[in-house]
This record gives sequence, structure tokens and C-alpha cells, in this order.
Amino acid sequence: MNQKKVVLSLLVSNHFGVLTRVTNLFSRRGYNIISLSVGETENPKFSRITVVTSGDEAIICQIKRQCAKLEDVKAIQEVEEQQLYMREVVLVKVRVTYMNEEEFMCFVAANQAKAYCIEQQLYMVEMCSSTQAVDAFIDKLEMFEIVEIVRTGGCALALSTATVYDER
Amino acid sequence: MNQKKVVLSLLVSNHFGVLTRVTNLFSRRGYNIISLSVGETENPKFSRITVVTSGDEAIICQIKRQCAKLEDVKAIQEVEEQQLYMREVVLVKVRVTYMNEEEFMCFVAANQAKAYCIEQQLYMVEMCSSTQAVDAFIDKLEMFEIVEIVRTGGCALALSTATVYDER
Repeated sequence: MNQKKVVLSLLVSNHFGVLTRVTNLFSRRGYNIISLSVGETENPKFSRITVVTSGDEAIICQIKRQCAKLEDVKAIQEVEEQQLYMREVVLVKVRVTYMNEEEFMCFVAANQAKAYCIEQQLYMVEMCSSTQAVDAFIDKLEMFEIVEIVRTGGCALALSTATVYDER
Repeated sequence: MNQKKVVLSLLVSNHFGVLTRVTNLFSRRGYNIISLSVGETENPKFSRITVVTSGDEAIICQIKRQCAKLEDVKAIQEVEEQQLYMREVVLVKVRVTYMNEEEFMCFVAANQAKAYCIEQQLYMVEMCSSTQAVDAFIDKLEMFEIVEIVRTGGCALALSTATVYDER
């Protein structure tokens, strides 16, 4: 069966240890986590966990069923790629020796990113975009000396009027 | 003792289940996770986990010591607030009835955010900024009807020349 990459958006109660129960479920059963982010929502009682995972149709079904069994998981949504608005942040600390500040700032702006000069020739570069655009931008930055990179992992909402959750 | 909020940046091996081992450590010992994000780094062998946690000095020390004991944790850094460059993304789906599209787009741009019209009166709004700025922007959006919010949790790099890790 074909492997596919899916984004699961879980609405969870803000109870103690809920993130652990979710990541435990993935690791115990050998499901792959490509990236994960967890943050607050419009309601202080809930958090939203966005997990990017991969597997064939049967595995994805299993993952959703297992997640739905967790008491703290209030809703699960599999967001399809074409219906997805997904963003992540990347921060890159980069040393630039063969462009001056003005040239580097132009390069960064042309790539819809922002930069901040930490000290001579050392910059903090920030970009918020789709995973593909972030990947492509990091490739371009490799012509400089990359000191450090951190990415948030994606967060996603469906581009539909109202999100249809499997409400429990 | 005074409670403080700290950001821990963990460089971890890309081994199976490493995220679970980290979140388990927090939940087993009753440490609080305010937000967490995990993503790729400059080296495909490693991921970086950014955890925002809170506790008094003694608790923070314990957390760092316990994390350092995990085999897959290659480096730990506590990033101090003044030395921190931290960003997160928020996506907000919002219904706007008492501004037209042009007015709403102006409001969004004035707040250094971006919006995308999904259908009449329904927008996907995106902002990448510090946690405080994201909080303030969400407060402003509350004058409209917020349909859904998702945030990534912060990712952070130190504003110093080179990150000093407790290398193991």
C-alpha cells in the first residue's frame, strides 16, 4: 500500500500529561512522528496538537482510532493536503562573509524572510511559511555558514468554513 | 521560591521514541509543559525540541539534570529571556461581519499579520511573532468572531555568537 504523509489535528483537554499519552501511543505502536507542535487554542480548557505522521491507509486509520480512544482527546481531524493551511517557523543563525549587510538584507527580503543582525557578519534569520518553502529557503541559506537551525514543526487549520470534527 | 518561566532547547538524536522519553520525564515527575515544539535541524541526525516550562530554581535544575541523563539528549541549553530570540506562529480562522475585505486587510497589515480570504467574510489570519505579540493580537481579534485558533508553541535560539551547549 502507498505510504502517505498526513496531518492530524487533535483537540485535547488541558489535563496534566495529555501530551505524554499522545506521544506514548505513537511510540508504543511504532507510528512515526515527523513533526509535532502543541499550543493553546481559543478556549483555555483545550490545547491543539498538530502531528505530521506517515503510513499506509490502514496505519493512518489505526492511528486515528487509537487517538480517539484517549479520554483527553476531544476531537480528531485529518486535514487533507489540498484543504490545508499549514505554516511553520524556522529560525536560522547564519554567518555571512561574502555579502555586506545591505546585500544580505536584500537577499532575505527577496525570499519573504526577515533578518536581524546579532553582530558583524552574524544574523538571526526568521521565516514563516509552508514546509516546502521553508525547506527551499534553508537550501538557499546553505551557501552561507549555517550556525544553528530550529523549526517549530507545522501547525495547520482546514480551509473549510467550519471544521468538521469527530466530536465525542 | 520564585516561580520562573524558562525555555529549554534540547538537541536530541533522531531516534525512535525520543520525544516520548522527554515528555514522559516531564509527566512522571510532575513538571509542567507550557508549550513544546519539535522539528528538524541543520543536521539530519538530530532534532531540536523547544520546551517552555515553569518552576522554581530547584525544579528547573532538576529538569535539566534529568533531561541530561537521557541517552538521546545530546545537548541542553536554558535560554535566558533577554538572550532569547523566540518566535511562534498562530493561525486564526475568523468571521468578520462589520468590516469589508479592504478594511479588514488594512487592520491585519497594521498588526504585521497576513490574511487570506477563504470565502465571503471568512478569513485565515497568520502571524509569526513573539509569544507576547501573538497574545496581544489574539486579544484584538476577539472583536470579531473567532472560529478556530492553532499555535505552534515557540521555537527559540540564543542571541549569542555560538550556542554553548553542555555537550556530552
